[in-house]
Amino acid sequence: MKIVVDAYGGDNAPAAIVAGAVDAMKADDGIIIVFTGKEIEIKELIKKENFSEADRYAIINADEIITNDEVPTAAVRSKLNSSLVVGLDYLKKEQSAAGFVSAGSTGAVLTGATLRVGRIENVARPALAPLLPRMDGKSVLLIDCGANVDCRPEMLLQFGIMGGAYMNALGVDKPRIALLNNGAESKKGNELTKAAFELLSASDLNFVGNTEAREIMSGNADVVVADGFVGNVALKACEGTALMILKMLKESVLNGGLTAKIGGMLIKKSLSGLKSKLDFNEQGGALFVGVNKVVVKAHGSSKRSAIKAAILQADGLAKAGLVEKISASLKN
Amino acid sequence: MKIVVDAYGGDNAPAAIVAGAVDAMKADDGIIIVFTGKEIEIKELIKKENFSEADRYAIINADEIITNDEVPTAAVRSKLNSSLVVGLDYLKKEQSAAGFVSAGSTGAVLTGATLRVGRIENVARPALAPLLPRMDGKSVLLIDCGANVDCRPEMLLQFGIMGGAYMNALGVDKPRIALLNNGAESKKGNELTKAAFELLSASDLNFVGNTEAREIMSGNADVVVADGFVGNVALKACEGTALMILKMLKESVLNGGLTAKIGGMLIKKSLSGLKSKLDFNEQGGALFVGVNKVVVKAHGSSKRSAIKAAILQADGLAKAGLVEKISASLKN
Repeated sequence: MKIVVDAYGGDNAPAAIVAGAVDAMKADDGIIIVFTGKEIEIKELIKKENFSEADRYAIINADEIITNDEVPTAAVRSKLNSSLVVGLDYLKKEQSAAGFVSAGSTGAVLTGATLRVGRIENVARPALAPLLPRMDGKSVLLIDCGANVDCRPEMLLQFGIMGGAYMNALGVDKPRIALLNNGAESKKGNELTKAAFELLSASDLNFVGNTEAREIMSGNADVVVADGFVGNVALKACEGTALMILKMLKESVLNGGLTAKIGGMLIKKSLSGLKSKLDFNEQGGALFVGVNKVVVKAHGSSKRSAIKAAILQADGLAKAGLVEKISASLKN
Repeated sequence: MKIVVDAYGGDNAPAAIVAGAVDAMKADDGIIIVFTGKEIEIKELIKKENFSEADRYAIINADEIITNDEVPTAAVRSKLNSSLVVGLDYLKKEQSAAGFVSAGSTGAVLTGATLRVGRIENVARPALAPLLPRMDGKSVLLIDCGANVDCRPEMLLQFGIMGGAYMNALGVDKPRIALLNNGAESKKGNELTKAAFELLSASDLNFVGNTEAREIMSGNADVVVADGFVGNVALKACEGTALMILKMLKESVLNGGLTAKIGGMLIKKSLSGLKSKLDFNEQGGALFVGVNKVVVKAHGSSKRSAIKAAILQADGLAKAGLVEKISASLKN
């Protein structure tokens, strides 16, 4: 599949982006990369990676860069020669282009994808949906995580439908859809979630009811639906706690005297396995669900391994016919 | 100080509640406990604890129990002889009663305290506010965590004022107040947080701007303001992640072969220190801020140590003149 990569988005761009893309091509013979960004620099970086299969990639020159400090709508509208907009335009225009990956400004990627690539028919609002690690080793989709900070109940229903189609494309049969709420009981919630509960209950989805934030990663659901503000808070609270604990653990071992230090050395391998299980980056990026092609937003701090994972993810979702599946799910 | 204790609220009531209260009396000579609940059973439990200072406690008989399954408003209105309502009525009536602790149904405690004890003058809505552990070893107050699931901007401003007065009573000079938001930039937010940001900025508070959920426990703020729905999600997401990681850590050590197992044994002490640092229970209960006396809601799963901590907390806050401080802060 042909994946378009914004080489100038993210904290570690362009070096980590290009390196991650080369790793993805090495990992999968079927992947073709179209880079957008400063052509000469990208060429240099590919050369550094000792990748010589020139027919596996192309570079479209784009001199401008959209940063995190810019207002997304204005930036996408004015910087038509940015690596982001050039990439999205190519994605829209070229039928063979199956997916897009950027680690750039979330707002700009979402606005850009909506404006330049367009929504799937019947989609009210595309949503940002990352996969989170679950205790059983599988993943749970949290949708929406920030694209829509003020939602109506019907939007939450549609997030459930799209999220279900996504997990189905990943091979999950009859995905269990839960609603993120302030209690597990069916009567719980604020105005929004109470109304969304009714809509989800009346739908054809495999709706399993409300879930509390402490159960998101428990394995009780395959898709957790939330408005973008709440989903964003939940995601970042999980990330922040995970980082804090791993740091405190390290400190408590280091300050625990010789016994603890030796113990720490002995469990180092187990710990690093745990760390990679918990690393939200290793799960690839967050999919922008509801636009007309596969658009993956990688974390701004993505290193080469995360970019590689995001590209493989985009490729897999395109192969699984994600856009067609979502489109079909909204026609029922 | 005289603290009223609902002996029949919580998963481990009445045994753990009575035992925790006895521990609190043993820990602080100045504490007098008024238990509410089944008198004969409570007497038996105190006897079991070998506590013979009969002038340090009293028991007010109350035969009914309010459970988690009941609709809070209906339960508080109909079960006038429940341990909860009898306790709250005593708290209101008796000037010498300085505080109240219950591990019972959150909804019933909040509704009961509002209806039977009443709000401080000028308080629009009391809020539930737990202290969370911070990376620097201190605590951060998250207000509101579930009392008000649909909020107006002015309510968030008032949560900031009350939260500031709370932390001030705990000895924090000019507490730093932050607004929980979906990004740190000042323009970020949904309709509610954008409007609340303006109000907080224009106030006399030491408002330090927006904070993302991943920064709640970072130490950047002493008070984090949120609407009750969002605060509840953030709190439970932190709790759930902490529990999951500690469980995964244990499993990864157990499944990591002999080396990891020996390592695990060597760091056991450091780990249990970390666990107690992260134990949200050990921080005491959540204060119900804005009612006319100190009301502490302990976690439903509280064991005796958590009940003891919650009673010491209620005693400390009453001594610090919390209600008077909040009252004064709302008159400015």
